[in-house]
Amino acid sequence: MLLQLSTWLEVESYLEQSQGIIIPIGSTEQHGPTGLIGTDALCAEAIAKGVGTQVQAMVAPTLNVGMALHHTAFPGTISLRPSTLIQVILDYVTCLARAGFRQFFFINGHGGNIATLKAAFAETYYHLDSLNLPNTNEVKCQVANWFMVREVYLLAKELYGDQEGSHATPSEVALTQYLYPESLKNAFLSEKVASGHGIYGAANFRQNYPDGRMGSNPALATPEHGQRFYELAVKELSNSYLEWLSCPLSKLISD
Amino acid sequence: MLLQLSTWLEVESYLEQSQGIIIPIGSTEQHGPTGLIGTDALCAEAIAKGVGTQVQAMVAPTLNVGMALHHTAFPGTISLRPSTLIQVILDYVTCLARAGFRQFFFINGHGGNIATLKAAFAETYYHLDSLNLPNTNEVKCQVANWFMVREVYLLAKELYGDQEGSHATPSEVALTQYLYPESLKNAFLSEKVASGHGIYGAANFRQNYPDGRMGSNPALATPEHGQRFYELAVKELSNSYLEWLSCPLSKLISD
Amino acid sequence: MLLQLSTWLEVESYLEQSQGIIIPIGSTEQHGPTGLIGTDALCAEAIAKGVGTQVQAMVAPTLNVGMALHHTAFPGTISLRPSTLIQVILDYVTCLARAGFRQFFFINGHGGNIATLKAAFAETYYHLDSLNLPNTNEVKCQVANWFMVREVYLLAKELYGDQEGSHATPSEVALTQYLYPESLKNAFLSEKVASGHGIYGAANFRQNYPDGRMGSNPALATPEHGQRFYELAVKELSNSYLEWLSCPLSKLISD
Amino acid sequence: MLLQLSTWLEVESYLEQSQGIIIPIGSTEQHGPTGLIGTDALCAEAIAKGVGTQVQAMVAPTLNVGMALHHTAFPGTISLRPSTLIQVILDYVTCLARAGFRQFFFINGHGGNIATLKAAFAETYYHLDSLNLPNTNEVKCQVANWFMVREVYLLAKELYGDQEGSHATPSEVALTQYLYPESLKNAFLSEKVASGHGIYGAANFRQNYPDGRMGSNPALATPEHGQRFYELAVKELSNSYLEWLSCPLSKLISD
Amino acid sequence: MLLQLSTWLEVESYLEQSQGIIIPIGSTEQHGPTGLIGTDALCAEAIAKGVGTQVQAMVAPTLNVGMALHHTAFPGTISLRPSTLIQVILDYVTCLARAGFRQFFFINGHGGNIATLKAAFAETYYHLDSLNLPNTNEVKCQVANWFMVREVYLLAKELYGDQEGSHATPSEVALTQYLYPESLKNAFLSEKVASGHGIYGAANFRQNYPDGRMGSNPALATPEHGQRFYELAVKELSNSYLEWLSCPLSKLISD
Amino acid sequence: MLLQLSTWLEVESYLEQSQGIIIPIGSTEQHGPTGLIGTDALCAEAIAKGVGTQVQAMVAPTLNVGMALHHTAFPGTISLRPSTLIQVILDYVTCLARAGFRQFFFINGHGGNIATLKAAFAETYYHLDSLNLPNTNEVKCQVANWFMVREVYLLAKELYGDQEGSHATPSEVALTQYLYPESLKNAFLSEKVASGHGIYGAANFRQNYPDGRMGSNPALATPEHGQRFYELAVKELSNSYLEWLSCPLSKLISD
Repeated sequence: MLLQLSTWLEVESYLEQSQGIIIPIGSTEQHGPTGLIGTDALCAEAIAKGVGTQVQAMVAPTLNVGMALHHTAFPGTISLRPSTLIQVILDYVTCLARAGFRQFFFINGHGGNIATLKAAFAETYYHLDSLNLPNTNEVKCQVANWFMVREVYLLAKELYGDQEGSHATPSEVALTQYLYPESLKNAFLSEKVASGHGIYGAANFRQNYPDGRMGSNPALATPEHGQRFYELAVKELSNSYLEWLSCPLSKLISD
Repeated sequence: MLLQLSTWLEVESYLEQSQGIIIPIGSTEQHGPTGLIGTDALCAEAIAKGVGTQVQAMVAPTLNVGMALHHTAFPGTISLRPSTLIQVILDYVTCLARAGFRQFFFINGHGGNIATLKAAFAETYYHLDSLNLPNTNEVKCQVANWFMVREVYLLAKELYGDQEGSHATPSEVALTQYLYPESLKNAFLSEKVASGHGIYGAANFRQNYPDGRMGSNPALATPEHGQRFYELAVKELSNSYLEWLSCPLSKLISD
Repeated sequence: MLLQLSTWLEVESYLEQSQGIIIPIGSTEQHGPTGLIGTDALCAEAIAKGVGTQVQAMVAPTLNVGMALHHTAFPGTISLRPSTLIQVILDYVTCLARAGFRQFFFINGHGGNIATLKAAFAETYYHLDSLNLPNTNEVKCQVANWFMVREVYLLAKELYGDQEGSHATPSEVALTQYLYPESLKNAFLSEKVASGHGIYGAANFRQNYPDGRMGSNPALATPEHGQRFYELAVKELSNSYLEWLSCPLSKLISD
Repeated sequence: MLLQLSTWLEVESYLEQSQGIIIPIGSTEQHGPTGLIGTDALCAEAIAKGVGTQVQAMVAPTLNVGMALHHTAFPGTISLRPSTLIQVILDYVTCLARAGFRQFFFINGHGGNIATLKAAFAETYYHLDSLNLPNTNEVKCQVANWFMVREVYLLAKELYGDQEGSHATPSEVALTQYLYPESLKNAFLSEKVASGHGIYGAANFRQNYPDGRMGSNPALATPEHGQRFYELAVKELSNSYLEWLSCPLSKLISD
Repeated sequence: MLLQLSTWLEVESYLEQSQGIIIPIGSTEQHGPTGLIGTDALCAEAIAKGVGTQVQAMVAPTLNVGMALHHTAFPGTISLRPSTLIQVILDYVTCLARAGFRQFFFINGHGGNIATLKAAFAETYYHLDSLNLPNTNEVKCQVANWFMVREVYLLAKELYGDQEGSHATPSEVALTQYLYPESLKNAFLSEKVASGHGIYGAANFRQNYPDGRMGSNPALATPEHGQRFYELAVKELSNSYLEWLSCPLSKLISD
Repeated sequence: MLLQLSTWLEVESYLEQSQGIIIPIGSTEQHGPTGLIGTDALCAEAIAKGVGTQVQAMVAPTLNVGMALHHTAFPGTISLRPSTLIQVILDYVTCLARAGFRQFFFINGHGGNIATLKAAFAETYYHLDSLNLPNTNEVKCQVANWFMVREVYLLAKELYGDQEGSHATPSEVALTQYLYPESLKNAFLSEKVASGHGIYGAANFRQNYPDGRMGSNPALATPEHGQRFYELAVKELSNSYLEWLSCPLSKLISD
């Protein structure tokens, strides 16, 4: 169920069955010469919708812009500051928690979001504590990174080995090729690709990673690979979601 | 051109031709018993993409959540606080302005966003002034509300008269029916619908508008109407965008 | 009754009769070569006091500085950022609401304040919701712009036609001439006056409107006109205030 | 010269002669059973205008509301939070400093403002440093508390001895009686008045100081005393202002 | 008792006996050519521990960095902005108040902290009011400046006369010599030392006080003096703490 | 070299040799029935000082309080909100970067700080970009968690196996026993210890982990173990620091 395509009466009914919601979060940032700027948001959105269908869960609209300040020296990147993103997450969760939602499962497409999301969760629990609403101490948030799912990771290693890299990776590019086959891009990819530099400010990042890739060879990606990644991620994250909802222990999802 | 489906190299090329960008902004809020929670975002997004195609402009990913605090007593509504939304807009525009964008055309689907957007624009111009970047004094932001376009307004009056109302209107519902024909909803709509109350806090709003509608009869909506609204809005806002880009006078767009 | 000239015991008594308060808000900004920098605050203050006397309502001290960032390239302008003004309004209303006030009627002298005020009201209602005070859901805020009162508008059109313009207008200048007859100013006013430009950042504004006027001819103003504006505004806003207090419908005041 | 009654052209001329400005700041807070809620703002405003006339300095509009959170358990009090007031001061000074003002002389009527003002000055200097404007390192702010002027203090001691107290004092009440003779108040003042308690939160304050006075006997005040205070304060602060402007040493004003 | 060296069970027990806590706060800022950058924090910490032992009170970990923006033109200085420090204090007190602490006694080593601390206390009381916790209206905060203790002040005058100055003073240097005898510094101290300038921004400060001292001659300091200051401060502040805890009147501590 | 025990002249000299600084950051939070509340700060501080000595680097004063909101249901815990901690880190780094420091090596004792630190680094790089200072794009921040150093981790596994747990671990307790042998605590430790629960809000945490431990048996700790941990951590982090300073690749430190 997509929140955007539901009515408030349907949400009211849904809340009688479940208090869980899936929130896709991505980023709008350069992904190398051939990767789509929307890669992280598009992947998270597609997988979240897939999981939502699989597990009959409500799916919120996608947070298309995340924390990508280090990519902002490349045109087309949009980023929130961490302090802004924290307030955005706090507002989302507070509104939904007032309405009765309790489990917030963020399906995330961008490594750079993780730290700020975790900071935001802490800020949010604390804020909810101050509101004197009933049972907000039951609110739980979880980041689930599709690209860090064990099976996805193993497939990427199998298909691409070291050329998977860590940004503008063939696995995420493959997934967008599967989702948006009309948007395959051609551009020169030098064989030599930068890798191993620390991530600091935006100017520094562009200096170290001049074409935006981090150790990756996205030319290896194919739409067929993308389909395999999609199906694996949906399957595994569906299981994760259900186990997380039902289980008092959180060992199931590594983050 | 969709920013999400572009590469940073394509954005670099685009910026040589144009420094304009269209940013759809909507809301995630109750729209009465039969209206979709995503109505405002879905309408803004579709029209923005239509305009983008028409005028060859870059279209940013949609801001799905806006300022809808007064709707938060209905489940499913998500809102940013105005102070959060101001920072979000400031972050968007600052990132894009650093990359060279100069004209920001927000196609808006929600009346409740207008005030905060205007406040955000003022805050953003002032912030850009402090950054010592070249030519940021040329940055211009504009809200263009599709539902306030003169021709759209006249068509709604013609089709629905007073039953257009001011929230969960048949015109916006019609547009979502055209866009998402598989998501038509059936629910009881009482003949008597509240109208004319001021808009204050969320509890007050729900008390005054118990089913979420404000003076509207969305049962009058049809997908065919929706198509007409879509085409009118795209045509008129395409003209507005082009005139706004080229013309030093701003009389063209009333807001 | 002026809050500044009352004691807390008198306020306590007043609250037993009424929970309404009038808050004048203006701006401290350039008003062209001959307009007073305090125009917006002085007009709002005078009219608010007039209304307060007429309707026996408490009048708060004037907010002399509002949102005028676009005027800050002219010396003498002082502006709050929108994010600051939101917190100021929130603090005002929260303090007074804790004491028992419920209806906040802002008599406003500056168009540039409107958007931020509306954003502030939304932020404030939401904040009050989190405080667990009794009946704060009854808090209502309203902007009443004296220069947009229908009768005032018609008189300005009648007296000045198109030369009313939209900033440093003869109507507001006339009103200050009536209020501060010792402060009539002489300065060169070119016959050609800029108009029709959009309002963006401060540098841009000054470039477009080099002497600060927007399409207006303040030389047409007279103290006698000012008196007529004053009396009309007081009369009409007094009615508006009373109707707003008593009436559950808000159609009475357009904003 | 009053900024509110000047034009921007006059400000431009003024700045060629002087870069100093006087900013009156008061408070809107309970002043015991007989003291005016506006006492601190009204006194600061009158004295600032007097000093402005004496020394030919520009006087900004009054900050009517300051930091009075500890008085908010009494109806009629309005206070900014310190974090809000800091941003307000920063906005004021930044706007005026961009226009060329350099010396900001705050004539203050409320002890509770002092700490936040000093914090705000530090925040503001630091902010100005980040703006890359010319010569903002020359910006200087000063709090001048009229009630702490040595000669004023001595006169109060002479007239009232220990009954001067520290809030709702006969000296400030006398000054408002001189300024607003039509607003003399009658109310029961118990002979026993609380004193010596620390100042903590609002509820605690009202518990300790049940009628709002702190050790004072405002019944001793007369309009004639008020005139003497007014004249002394204007004279002494005029000297202080001139010495502060001209002298590189700051020993002249104790704060 | 040091909070850092206690367990939460010991804190639980302590709270049954006392709800008071001592929080040392200093600064990390230049102290002239021979003074330690940590002077203010090291002095506050040592004295706070001494007082804690004397009066059997819990001592929190030291706030090593305070408000020292005006010293930031000298390398090694670290400062919070006032707006940051306010949030830090609010967070400290709120956490501890939720656990049951009620009296917060800040032993302070830096004059520049005082204003911001007082602003922070006001902000904190107000914040606690909004949390609906039991008895938070009993929360009391107090700044106790060791260098302003009457006996300490008199000793400094006796030993150093005017050469005590007001920053990088021989008294505080002596105290660090006593505490850290291995860190005595040698550097050229010109006989002529700047004094009497106002304190404004950082660049201005360094211009006026080129070696960082303000009217002081720290060469007069000896470790033996330091011991006397230490013992005096511990003795007097121990008395102050006990009186403050027990006494409803706050006259005992001047601030 | 300890910053607190240096003069500004010594810092000036140091900066000619190195632009690196080590900043210890810990937490003030419950560590189970026998662990010290200061564990994380005390460990980070001791190791940072050890590393500083080893590599001749400047060591800043310890950030004693970090992000521990989830522990705040246990008395004695003090935490900053993530939004506060971000501003604190930004202020620290900005001050030091203005003075010439470029490499900021945070030696961290608390897992709960990591996410917020990373968010803060991103916010800080972006902020520095806006300041127009020379070469701030060279600023680099790094979190180095002593407890995640590979050799430390292996020793903990060897000594304690699964009983190491993840909070109030025997390894950190051992280290404090080595550092503060006079503060060994006795308290009942049930054999059964909670583990595997997710970390959400504070009330939820205490419910799941009633004595504060997370799967650990701190009774296994000995001061001798502590010494081994200390020496390993100092040795390995000294290497890490030197490699990080000198090496353009960041693979050396996993985080």
